[in-house]
Amino acid sequence: MTLTVENAREIIRVTKEAGAAENMKPLSVVVVDAGGHVIAFERGEGAPPGRFDIAQGKAYGSIMLGIGGTAQRDRAEAQAYFVLAANGAYQGRLVPVPGGILVRDTKGAVIGAVGVTGDTSENDLAAGEAGIQAVGLIAEG
Amino acid sequence: MTLTVENAREIIRVTKEAGAAENMKPLSVVVVDAGGHVIAFERGEGAPPGRFDIAQGKAYGSIMLGIGGTAQRDRAEAQAYFVLAANGAYQGRLVPVPGGILVRDTKGAVIGAVGVTGDTSENDLAAGEAGIQAVGLIAEG
Amino acid sequence: MTLTVENAREIIRVTKEAGAAENMKPLSVVVVDAGGHVIAFERGEGAPPGRFDIAQGKAYGSIMLGIGGTAQRDRAEAQAYFVLAANGAYQGRLVPVPGGILVRDTKGAVIGAVGVTGDTSENDLAAGEAGIQAVGLIAEG
Amino acid sequence: MTLTVENAREIIRVTKEAGAAENMKPLSVVVVDAGGHVIAFERGEGAPPGRFDIAQGKAYGSIMLGIGGTAQRDRAEAQAYFVLAANGAYQGRLVPVPGGILVRDTKGAVIGAVGVTGDTSENDLAAGEAGIQAVGLIAEG
Repeated sequence: MTLTVENAREIIRVTKEAGAAENMKPLSVVVVDAGGHVIAFERGEGAPPGRFDIAQGKAYGSIMLGIGGTAQRDRAEAQAYFVLAANGAYQGRLVPVPGGILVRDTKGAVIGAVGVTGDTSENDLAAGEAGIQAVGLIAEG
Repeated sequence: MTLTVENAREIIRVTKEAGAAENMKPLSVVVVDAGGHVIAFERGEGAPPGRFDIAQGKAYGSIMLGIGGTAQRDRAEAQAYFVLAANGAYQGRLVPVPGGILVRDTKGAVIGAVGVTGDTSENDLAAGEAGIQAVGLIAEG
Repeated sequence: MTLTVENAREIIRVTKEAGAAENMKPLSVVVVDAGGHVIAFERGEGAPPGRFDIAQGKAYGSIMLGIGGTAQRDRAEAQAYFVLAANGAYQGRLVPVPGGILVRDTKGAVIGAVGVTGDTSENDLAAGEAGIQAVGLIAEG
Repeated sequence: MTLTVENAREIIRVTKEAGAAENMKPLSVVVVDAGGHVIAFERGEGAPPGRFDIAQGKAYGSIMLGIGGTAQRDRAEAQAYFVLAANGAYQGRLVPVPGGILVRDTKGAVIGAVGVTGDTSENDLAAGEAGIQAVGLIAEG
């Protein structure tokens, strides 16, 4: 199973709506495939211009390390130099905080990841989970 | 005037529909702002994974050089070393062929650019123009 | 369907044997997945130290552009500046000559790519095709 | 004396078997030569896609700094800024934790390095040592 473009568009739509419903700041959302390549992205209205890179870093790092942003943050807090070194190995493309979320199919296989940024990391994560669950997939943040 | 996220979403939707109506291969479309930063992107269904980089290169180069992809292509065919050198100055992020399209408002100011890839460069351009015109803006390919 | 590590190991083994049987120079062979990420690599015995990067460039470019090395070479000969610009968009990681080979499953889906280097580009391609066919998959060079 | 391709293949095979025998997660293993260039690599079955970069960082850093991953980790914990600065000097390619292992010949000369990743750093190291010893060489982790 793979994430379709339609899945990605719906994940973005629901994630942004979930953020708006909770009065979060405008969320920027990326969806990547199982290889970390971008399927779709939308910036939050009025958000700073470089949001793509942050959202992408959250999603890309989740794919590359095989763990969600919460686990990345925990590892970074326990052993910062390791996460910084891993970041170097991936050309500085990791953003190891909540809001990077693995997407698994109903059999448990990783089929992509979502990166959300704009509000607190925990709120980013909550909104992204709502988006992933809306298309019947499993979120691992 | 600035390009809104809603503009970008509509440009992508109409560009992809215009391609499908002409039986083009699935189009991938990026919309960037007046600083060359991504507002929204959507890959074509079934397209190769790295389409973002090509679409982005078309749009980014249009913003950086201040001319559309057709004029970039003409310059590259007349003086390849100049365009390659400019590409070095922009960290290799230019893709100087048709399908990179400046977006101007009705007063002529550049407010963003669109990058389209997936079919021939000329078809990519035609579809992108349809998308830009659908939101009442001016395309310069 | 995805390429397994065992598939990759067998593709490498048969590709190197096919080269040796035709008295080619020692071949270096990489196998990447559908996202362009390395599954397995083996340098040719006595080959120069940097063979990984060439083999990887052939395979990575095939995945990113969605065409094999022969089609990349043809495009480069017709429109060199485009292929060089695409290379910039992919951080200089393309090597657009024969020996980069898409791997399709029996339904036609791209599930990975192989990159072979060491002898002439045409011989590299022939050996890699033998490797891919040995595991019942389809080679598009 | 130099590490042969056959040595590298055997080191990878035994390292992965050693990991499996101890119920470790699937290990990804790279073998590099005395210049830090890849001889052979194999990802662990089912491991995340970017394992090459981590394994390579462990092995490359061992060669460049002339010490194994355990000594690198100790230095990083004592003086993080130094290891991070060294990492910058090597373009971010160091991963200074156990699992990066120097390979010495029986006279003590460094002839290559191994990078192992997938389980805990200590387990990665133990499995890699088994691989190196299986070909009659000396591991310095």
